[in-house]
Amino acid sequence: MTIQFSKIGLIGKHAHPEVRSTAASLIAFLQHQGIEVILEKTEYSVSPDLPLPQASRDELGKHCDLIIVVGGDGSLLDASRAMVDFDVPLVGVNRGRRGFLTDISPQALTQSLEPILRGEFQEERRFLLEMALWRNNNIIAKSIALNEVTLYCGDIARMLEFELSIGSQHVYRQRSDGLIVATPTGSTAHALAGGGPIIHPAINAMVLVPMHPSVLSSRPIVIDANLPISLHLTSDSVLNPRISCDGQVHFDAIPNDKILIKRKAKELRLLHPMDYDYYDTLRTKLGWSA
Amino acid sequence: MTIQFSKIGLIGKHAHPEVRSTAASLIAFLQHQGIEVILEKTEYSVSPDLPLPQASRDELGKHCDLIIVVGGDGSLLDASRAMVDFDVPLVGVNRGRRGFLTDISPQALTQSLEPILRGEFQEERRFLLEMALWRNNNIIAKSIALNEVTLYCGDIARMLEFELSIGSQHVYRQRSDGLIVATPTGSTAHALAGGGPIIHPAINAMVLVPMHPSVLSSRPIVIDANLPISLHLTSDSVLNPRISCDGQVHFDAIPNDKILIKRKAKELRLLHPMDYDYYDTLRTKLGWSA
Amino acid sequence: MTIQFSKIGLIGKHAHPEVRSTAASLIAFLQHQGIEVILEKTEYSVSPDLPLPQASRDELGKHCDLIIVVGGDGSLLDASRAMVDFDVPLVGVNRGRRGFLTDISPQALTQSLEPILRGEFQEERRFLLEMALWRNNNIIAKSIALNEVTLYCGDIARMLEFELSIGSQHVYRQRSDGLIVATPTGSTAHALAGGGPIIHPAINAMVLVPMHPSVLSSRPIVIDANLPISLHLTSDSVLNPRISCDGQVHFDAIPNDKILIKRKAKELRLLHPMDYDYYDTLRTKLGWSA
Amino acid sequence: MTIQFSKIGLIGKHAHPEVRSTAASLIAFLQHQGIEVILEKTEYSVSPDLPLPQASRDELGKHCDLIIVVGGDGSLLDASRAMVDFDVPLVGVNRGRRGFLTDISPQALTQSLEPILRGEFQEERRFLLEMALWRNNNIIAKSIALNEVTLYCGDIARMLEFELSIGSQHVYRQRSDGLIVATPTGSTAHALAGGGPIIHPAINAMVLVPMHPSVLSSRPIVIDANLPISLHLTSDSVLNPRISCDGQVHFDAIPNDKILIKRKAKELRLLHPMDYDYYDTLRTKLGWSA
Repeated sequence: MTIQFSKIGLIGKHAHPEVRSTAASLIAFLQHQGIEVILEKTEYSVSPDLPLPQASRDELGKHCDLIIVVGGDGSLLDASRAMVDFDVPLVGVNRGRRGFLTDISPQALTQSLEPILRGEFQEERRFLLEMALWRNNNIIAKSIALNEVTLYCGDIARMLEFELSIGSQHVYRQRSDGLIVATPTGSTAHALAGGGPIIHPAINAMVLVPMHPSVLSSRPIVIDANLPISLHLTSDSVLNPRISCDGQVHFDAIPNDKILIKRKAKELRLLHPMDYDYYDTLRTKLGWSA
Repeated sequence: MTIQFSKIGLIGKHAHPEVRSTAASLIAFLQHQGIEVILEKTEYSVSPDLPLPQASRDELGKHCDLIIVVGGDGSLLDASRAMVDFDVPLVGVNRGRRGFLTDISPQALTQSLEPILRGEFQEERRFLLEMALWRNNNIIAKSIALNEVTLYCGDIARMLEFELSIGSQHVYRQRSDGLIVATPTGSTAHALAGGGPIIHPAINAMVLVPMHPSVLSSRPIVIDANLPISLHLTSDSVLNPRISCDGQVHFDAIPNDKILIKRKAKELRLLHPMDYDYYDTLRTKLGWSA
Repeated sequence: MTIQFSKIGLIGKHAHPEVRSTAASLIAFLQHQGIEVILEKTEYSVSPDLPLPQASRDELGKHCDLIIVVGGDGSLLDASRAMVDFDVPLVGVNRGRRGFLTDISPQALTQSLEPILRGEFQEERRFLLEMALWRNNNIIAKSIALNEVTLYCGDIARMLEFELSIGSQHVYRQRSDGLIVATPTGSTAHALAGGGPIIHPAINAMVLVPMHPSVLSSRPIVIDANLPISLHLTSDSVLNPRISCDGQVHFDAIPNDKILIKRKAKELRLLHPMDYDYYDTLRTKLGWSA
Repeated sequence: MTIQFSKIGLIGKHAHPEVRSTAASLIAFLQHQGIEVILEKTEYSVSPDLPLPQASRDELGKHCDLIIVVGGDGSLLDASRAMVDFDVPLVGVNRGRRGFLTDISPQALTQSLEPILRGEFQEERRFLLEMALWRNNNIIAKSIALNEVTLYCGDIARMLEFELSIGSQHVYRQRSDGLIVATPTGSTAHALAGGGPIIHPAINAMVLVPMHPSVLSSRPIVIDANLPISLHLTSDSVLNPRISCDGQVHFDAIPNDKILIKRKAKELRLLHPMDYDYYDTLRTKLGWSA
């Protein structure tokens, strides 16, 4: 039996007490397996009392053969966007609320991680979205998202107005509080609370979920993920439209801006325990068993 | 046959071309009936080419026996909050989109207004909400609303968290994008787009509509309008919660603030033509006939 | 300390093992307090091994001063319709699933019942609906409902079509799978699963919830419970529309029939323990606390 | 310019006056082009005053090179199930209500059909579902559906209870009024009224829409159309569960039955005019433009 990973990067908000204690057990366990552990080096994660090498996210991506994220889905989203361009897989240890993505429980940390370290895991690919904000024929901002790109209104005073195109086809002009463009991964996050469907991660589709649309017959639309989406803010639009990626990266837009969203070619590699079951996660997290 | 109103105040965004042309016809018609017309005097409404007396909203409220609002529901909401404390009735001429409240069509202006001026109208009372923002046992902001008081998140990054009480009873601790507390009047506005029910204006009830709640079994709740509502922002809450009244008046809140909402004792007097029919308005505005 | 009730009627599906065992403890407890216990006498509830007097529902209603229902909400609905015309109060012991109405837990049977028997309880009034099915100007069927009257389609092949009036006002012609007309009591039952709001039982309102309406902008409407509702099946309507009261009493209708629904004058008397809390029941039953 | 089709089958409820008049114009037009026209021969469609050859659906399928359906979406669903196993394409002329599928307007009959007859059309493939009802390890009924397979309760008295599996994975045990399993084609039909998303027809997915589920956190799920679905009626289930295909073919089930649903290999060929635009149809039919 051989360990498959020799250098593991650790990402998480180590300042948070719960993360810190789980990270301590984790580090001890990994070092005991002879694995080299490197800590992510950011303002949030620096933990002076851990006598371990630290590296930037890019360095982690380049040099590690596995990234372990300790935290909630928020931490995993954040790490995913940073790691997707490197070929390193991620695994999540849940120290947050729901944990659709971070499926290793801290209570079963070593039992769950040991087989993964030996190479016994399910590897899943999840796709991300690329967002580009265009103004006067120039890209003025870019980002990526694992869950969703959201166009929303910083102010609730007046509704946004925008035109939606999918591929080369005009879909509608909508007045609403905004629009969520979600991946299957994001379909169980904010989009679900907005009335969107659950989309199995094996499907190459995106879902568009209007937020509080003025036309009551507006409905979530599931479309082919290979078609680019364009949101064109009309000149009538409210003064401060905003765009967020995963609810974590934010940009300000103005009337007449265009937001282009498309599937990112490079996919995220996510590792799950062998007994991971997507529907079991849904049942547990959404309270269906009750 | 006698005219029942001798002094009429005119409110509207007179700078807007469509409002201006309707207002011009309206003024000519009213003057021809021997009615004294006074224009609202604000930065938006001052119209130098109309040779008419101008007055502040308070003066209009004190001295006029009818207020005519030309514009959309937004203008009528705005005017309602300004006029409700005076005993003067309002009537709305629709120059906006939906016009649930401004039920006189500019095409049938004189045919609709003439009977109203003679005293042939349906008078309806609509109640408003009073909102008080409490911080460290002091009220730091107050306002009123005809449609709804909304607690929302200026930033979509993290959810709000608050505790809801109705009367003296704890209802729930909720994590969501916010909560809409709507009157029956507001039940056909933003609350409807959020999944709330339509509430007939004769019912003395409010509806609480959670916006994108994290717990999927959260549902709109209809409660007795005589019970005060308290929203207590938890210390975990996001950094910039905001409150709006009718989407027009905004306040910033901070964690641990309390928002108290209750039915205002003084009601709005709204005049409708004799053939006004609430359900006909719903059928037309919501496209049920299609 | 005196017992307030001297003759108590027991209603429940005694053939059901869980009901039987709870009923046995209950009878022992009541007899020990010197209370006379009478069993309901129906095909379901006759239990030959209980050496107790039996009586019809009408006799129970006339002679008892309290009715205890052991079972789920279904049993309490059934008993409510039978008892509402007598002046006897009901209390429910939960042996079913949700138990919005049967709020005494069998685990705390004697602790909860003892204070009630001594007169320490909250008494609540809940209103019911009266349904009359009219054909060619004659009433051909009548019933009552505590939760809801439902017009639905026995066959899912074609949609129902009907015209809705409230009081003397036409509301809409609708094509759908049917319509739920619910009381506040019924607002947490089938109507809730259909997208209706929760309505606090203190509000004198009904909610109309369309089931799968063809017009997507159709929405639940909350109206004054004092206005009669009329559903007129059009001649185009499907061949086998049906009506149910509380999902327990069923009637077949045909095109051109009219269904009249109005608030029943006589109200149900429901007893709760002193610590009963409506919102706590919601939190528990709907999983809000999770 | 040559006509691409030499023998065209005509399907529709010719007894219906509107269908009859459109069919008459259509026949005249086709005969003028030198096309042989054959009428479908069923109890509904036989029209003795049309002096044309008649044939069964199977014969039409074998011998025609195009089928024109005159009627609503119901007629096209019916014809699709009959024709899908032959290789003949269908085109629909709308004489019904919505007409998502029958996209040729009778007002523009010849202008729209002429280019199609010349070979200028968009051909689209739509997949169907195969349903098999299993009892005691035997298939006791089979059918297919273009829109949806629906498990529902003939009686609204008690909820259905069933277990859902997708592929080999258990998903949930659900209590509800039933479940709609829809194709992308069916996603704009009954499933949409039940809260399901719109799914673009190019996506190889099905959507499962629970009807009035008792667990309020139940949501529509979009899954890979290549995975078979199994619905296992529990022994607790209500007495008369039913299954329908496209709301047109019905079967009775009993507790412990299994319903297997999978994508049919053979697809429907549907012809549209060159200017057909899926999103334009949505905008028009769903009233988004209003």
